Amino acid sequence: MDNKEQKHTDVNTLGEFGLIERLTSDVGTHHDTTVKGIGDDAAVLKYGSEHLVVSTDLLVEGIHFDLIYSPLKHLGYKAIVVNLSDIYAMNATPQQVTVSVAISSKYSIEAMEELYAGIKEACRRYDVDLVGGDTTSSPKGMTISVTAIGKVDKDKITYRSGAKKGDIVCVSGDLGSAYLGLQILEREKQLYLSNPGIQPDLEDQQYVLERQLKPEARKDMIAYFEKDKLVPTAMMDISDGLASDLMHICKASDVGAYLEEAKIPINQQAQMLAIKFQLDPITTALNGGEDYELLFTIDEKDLEKIRYMPSTYIIGEITDKEDGIKLHTSGGNIHPLKAQGWTHFSE
Amino acid sequence: MDNKEQKHTDVNTLGEFGLIERLTSDVGTHHDTTVKGIGDDAAVLKYGSEHLVVSTDLLVEGIHFDLIYSPLKHLGYKAIVVNLSDIYAMNATPQQVTVSVAISSKYSIEAMEELYAGIKEACRRYDVDLVGGDTTSSPKGMTISVTAIGKVDKDKITYRSGAKKGDIVCVSGDLGSAYLGLQILEREKQLYLSNPGIQPDLEDQQYVLERQLKPEARKDMIAYFEKDKLVPTAMMDISDGLASDLMHICKASDVGAYLEEAKIPINQQAQMLAIKFQLDPITTALNGGEDYELLFTIDEKDLEKIRYMPSTYIIGEITDKEDGIKLHTSGGNIHPLKAQGWTHFSE
Repeated sequence: MDNKEQKHTDVNTLGEFGLIERLTSDVGTHHDTTVKGIGDDAAVLKYGSEHLVVSTDLLVEGIHFDLIYSPLKHLGYKAIVVNLSDIYAMNATPQQVTVSVAISSKYSIEAMEELYAGIKEACRRYDVDLVGGDTTSSPKGMTISVTAIGKVDKDKITYRSGAKKGDIVCVSGDLGSAYLGLQILEREKQLYLSNPGIQPDLEDQQYVLERQLKPEARKDMIAYFEKDKLVPTAMMDISDGLASDLMHICKASDVGAYLEEAKIPINQQAQMLAIKFQLDPITTALNGGEDYELLFTIDEKDLEKIRYMPSTYIIGEITDKEDGIKLHTSGGNIHPLKAQGWTHFSE
Repeated sequence: MDNKEQKHTDVNTLGEFGLIERLTSDVGTHHDTTVKGIGDDAAVLKYGSEHLVVSTDLLVEGIHFDLIYSPLKHLGYKAIVVNLSDIYAMNATPQQVTVSVAISSKYSIEAMEELYAGIKEACRRYDVDLVGGDTTSSPKGMTISVTAIGKVDKDKITYRSGAKKGDIVCVSGDLGSAYLGLQILEREKQLYLSNPGIQPDLEDQQYVLERQLKPEARKDMIAYFEKDKLVPTAMMDISDGLASDLMHICKASDVGAYLEEAKIPINQQAQMLAIKFQLDPITTALNGGEDYELLFTIDEKDLEKIRYMPSTYIIGEITDKEDGIKLHTSGGNIHPLKAQGWTHFSE
């Protein structure tokens, strides 16, 4: 009876990041327990002498996951992992998670037990306490909301905004595999829908499928940083894609950057699959998303510390803002980097 | 291609509380930053010397709200308030909230701005910082997830489990109005759907409508407790209904209780509307839900402190567990109390 709007501007005109920016641009913070509000992987709070980070995520069936090919146990595991990844991206150690699940009546108790088996498995593996949550009903499909809380020493908090000219750009592992895993699953889904009797042969695609269905968060990197007394100057996790996420760091830090195409780590299986799918492997690495690797920058004085750090790849350098964000191709050309990350709204 | 279950047990067989209990019964906590996990209005954490409470909620269109009669601004306001109510129910002071919203493409930017106007209005009014959140897309409808964080002195934390025999049962305001507000809105919706030209006359129903559409959390009560140095022995907020929520306290505290029917506060407008709807006013007060009043118990030695406390009603007493949970009717009869709270699954 209400809700008649004078004007209707499609949310697609702004995209996901544009929309939240528009909605929250006037939001300030004023409690002394709030150190950093909206705008990073996680909010930073200060209670007493302790610093906490808090991150929250909403996973929606049909947008973020497809139960035709996501086993529920994997889905529960992934729902936790993607949130913990945000906590690690602040150089923090996760402590607690809360989980809320809305489900339609098509889900059985056994299905929910599968989902929770994955949730609990991730909590055990990453050593976090499941401290809250509820289940409620939904008219259609499943929605999972996870909030993760971590702790961090004040002098180790790593924001997106600390990168400066001359810093080295690093990534914690290979990129593009999760995206290729998704391509395979989508292809198999189409085959299955047209012929449910078919049994998919996914044998030699195990690596990329696992990267998509059951990703891991880089807990180990935080331990390496701690051990080597290295504090990155900026960090975030790669959820939207290397290109898009590097742009976030550059924007927050008010700098430019270049990436060396030849240095970007791509798994061999992923490389071959990309070609099979007639995709440029480097494009899948730059724009694929959902890799949940850590993208971070370090001061050049710390170069020696990372040279022998396990699974750490140097892929570029931070430059002046005026120099823009560039890709140095293997062929010797320089291109402006384009972000084609997963902005669900504009699909 | 997976997810074929051997067994399919309908979630309705357990209900909302039964399901989450079954899914999380084996979940323990082991971090020393975790004081209390699943099972109260909020989790209790301890970071350094500070105690925090954390609560999270998922509101789903078509289940928890209906946009035919919920103005988006009110909805945003209510989404925050119902979470803060859980924080107050721990006798804590909310500090931060995070908000995630999933929307289908039918929602315009202007609609989202309305929703966020309500969210920000509630944050201002309750003095909390909006520190995180995101928007994402949904195949259908809207889902809102809110997490609230508050702080509390260790010796003031009020769990559901502290009620003991002889304690006095209190409530912070009148009950049943929100439910009656919902009945009116549902009736008007039916009228509107059958004749969209009709203009509803809601003049003299303002109070119950506001209780439903734009409820307030009892921030003031926490201030009264502080001022009078009163710490309730147990507390929770009334979201499911007085009967159901009292049962939660009794179960957690391992006690029984009785309520005096004549003492349960019911607003006069609500009383008249109940009769108009051919509902028993006391039934709406016991089972209506969504009142977001605080239900709490106090030691009898504190009786003098609440006698003159604003909007505090003494409605019963805690008894032995063996005595069960009873209603003393105005007619002098004693009935076992039945909970008919809103368990969405079993609708």
